[in-house]
Amino acid sequence: MADTRTVFFVSDGTGITAEAWGAALLSQFDTSTFENHTIAFVTNVLDAEKTVQRIDRANVPGQRPIVFSTTVDQDIKNILSTSKSLFIDLFDQTLPTLELELGVKSAPIKGSAHGISNATKYQQRMAAIEYSIEHDDGQSLRALDQADIILVAPSRCGKTPTSMYLSLQYGVKAANFPIVDEDFNTLKLPASLEKTSDKAFGLISTPQRLQTVRSERRPNSKYASIEQCRFEIDSAMHIFEKYKIPYLDSSTKSVEELASVAMDIKGLRS
Amino acid sequence: MADTRTVFFVSDGTGITAEAWGAALLSQFDTSTFENHTIAFVTNVLDAEKTVQRIDRANVPGQRPIVFSTTVDQDIKNILSTSKSLFIDLFDQTLPTLELELGVKSAPIKGSAHGISNATKYQQRMAAIEYSIEHDDGQSLRALDQADIILVAPSRCGKTPTSMYLSLQYGVKAANFPIVDEDFNTLKLPASLEKTSDKAFGLISTPQRLQTVRSERRPNSKYASIEQCRFEIDSAMHIFEKYKIPYLDSSTKSVEELASVAMDIKGLRS
Repeated sequence: MADTRTVFFVSDGTGITAEAWGAALLSQFDTSTFENHTIAFVTNVLDAEKTVQRIDRANVPGQRPIVFSTTVDQDIKNILSTSKSLFIDLFDQTLPTLELELGVKSAPIKGSAHGISNATKYQQRMAAIEYSIEHDDGQSLRALDQADIILVAPSRCGKTPTSMYLSLQYGVKAANFPIVDEDFNTLKLPASLEKTSDKAFGLISTPQRLQTVRSERRPNSKYASIEQCRFEIDSAMHIFEKYKIPYLDSSTKSVEELASVAMDIKGLRS
Repeated sequence: MADTRTVFFVSDGTGITAEAWGAALLSQFDTSTFENHTIAFVTNVLDAEKTVQRIDRANVPGQRPIVFSTTVDQDIKNILSTSKSLFIDLFDQTLPTLELELGVKSAPIKGSAHGISNATKYQQRMAAIEYSIEHDDGQSLRALDQADIILVAPSRCGKTPTSMYLSLQYGVKAANFPIVDEDFNTLKLPASLEKTSDKAFGLISTPQRLQTVRSERRPNSKYASIEQCRFEIDSAMHIFEKYKIPYLDSSTKSVEELASVAMDIKGLRS
């Protein structure tokens, strides 16, 4: 029986882990429909009681809400679990197994379940995002040799979001460079990239997809024509193969996937 | 007993969910040390066998590796679970509970556990990141009325990374605007922001923290002096209070927290 449920991701922190964890589980039920809500920063008894009220207002007979909770504090958890819901706790099921394995008891740390591992890594991410913005779309050649990866692609193949994701998620300094008319005609990398081509990673798309995306920006232009899109993609592939630059088709992959595959291929993953 | 363990986040997708989920659990053991590795895109039997070999190479007597797996395919999971590790599967423990609740069997969808809910939301995120980059640091006034939120702050208080995070994570169109000398002196918002001040969200820092961050960029400058930092923060708070703009101190919060709190305060969360 198909089902429509209200889902709450409840957290004493940002709710980001609760969302990722819960969404992964719900993704396995593609015949059901879920209406998702996030309730973040539930850090005290009053918040917890309000959260219970909100969950209970969404209660429908036979279709009680599903709650994915990543709250750590036992008092708060006790209150949340009184809601008229299927209450699923991230820690309940797995912490005992880990405690047994590690031979220590866990020490509840409120709001800590958001996965930022330490301050150093955090500073690294902040520096990376600044670097990536400065080096978006070939804007700056300054310190290009400090890039961990340089995304290279024709206009509108996903360079910018992939760069931002690489820096925010992985703390990787990601520059990105457009391939433009001159490069297509000479089938050469921009001169400024030739000596750092070992850091280059290419993106292409399909002509149809690129036409659609470009048409949103400049309808009926040469830029958005299927011939131009096909020419640019073909030329880009030529360049990538000539310089032995690995590349991906962004038309069938999410930014998360593009970034993650690029991390693997360029050996940037620890 | 303190413990050092090798941890593997193993996934048939990007590994991002496995990392978030595993890190949340491990964060509760602050006396132990973990050496983390992500193995992404384990999508076939050969990959699975190689992954087992890699896990087994990290095996130390009495300190077997811990594996957090979000792979969906049962054949792959069977292979992975033969590794000499504590093998913890995201789905094993919770899917049966959800199946019972929803009255349907789950349908394994490979690589689907990364939580991108649907194509519409995805397009929205891509549009948002472009918007946020165009509107970084007050660069453009075009379509400023389309912003969902406008971050306003003195230089180096975290506007840029917070904007990027808001757009990438939540698909929110986040512009950001610096408060500069003229504004400090008049204690007024920049004219271009006055009519959209209901979308404004302020960031401040502490004078000490701001001095440290600014000194990295311009050591021994007036810009980085404690007096100037104090003056700018005081003035920014004056402006925020005058225009009733909510604001946060970014010196004690992660970008994830800043973004998540801003979503709540501005009512942008579904």
